[in-house]
Amino acid sequence: MRSSTHRPAGTHLLADFYGVDAALLIAPQAIDALLRSGAEAAGAHILHSHFHSFGDAMGVTGVVLLAESHISIHTWPEFGFAAADIFMCGDAQPKLALDLISAALKPTSSIVQTIARGGAALPL
Amino acid sequence: MRSSTHRPAGTHLLADFYGVDAALLIAPQAIDALLRSGAEAAGAHILHSHFHSFGDAMGVTGVVLLAESHISIHTWPEFGFAAADIFMCGDAQPKLALDLISAALKPTSSIVQTIARGGAALPL
Repeated sequence: MRSSTHRPAGTHLLADFYGVDAALLIAPQAIDALLRSGAEAAGAHILHSHFHSFGDAMGVTGVVLLAESHISIHTWPEFGFAAADIFMCGDAQPKLALDLISAALKPTSSIVQTIARGGAALPL
Repeated sequence: MRSSTHRPAGTHLLADFYGVDAALLIAPQAIDALLRSGAEAAGAHILHSHFHSFGDAMGVTGVVLLAESHISIHTWPEFGFAAADIFMCGDAQPKLALDLISAALKPTSSIVQTIARGGAALPL
């Protein structure tokens, strides 16, 4: 969790999920619940969430804001595709969120990129 | 903008800004306005935004959700540091948002990583 003594270094996971059942990519409430579960699995603290549906059987875009940064997802059911990003600083464990989300979406393939953020930041 | 015929390929810019004046990193309304201006500069369409302050003179975390994906930012004024990410698909131009945000924050240095997303997605 954020505090005035907490360093900003964090890990940003970018996950592209391919071959996902379209039915899993169209329901904003279910996707909100999934990302919240991911945040909890990672030990993160939820501040806010918002999910938007582009229409019946269409994609969803949304985010869960965390004290540790965020989890976002954008889905394209017509392509069986979802782009998620999981950015957490501090003691939260973003890989645990990724594992939970991936297990729920069951992609036939995925590409995950792991990016270190903020490592060069020094106190003012 | 999203549509049923729109391919999911997009560009995700991860920008770490160092050496930013702390006064620019603590006001959620000003940061909301800055990211909204970035979205508009990029030609993106805003769906929702939410910004959270961790307290007086403390960091801000927030997101602007777009029809084209999102812009997020997490700030650490005590380190003069901000981590932004700008993810846009379709015809929007995320580099224009980055340029506007960077010009406003005036970092003494920055590290920008450009990640291609969703390029392997095919229609179901």
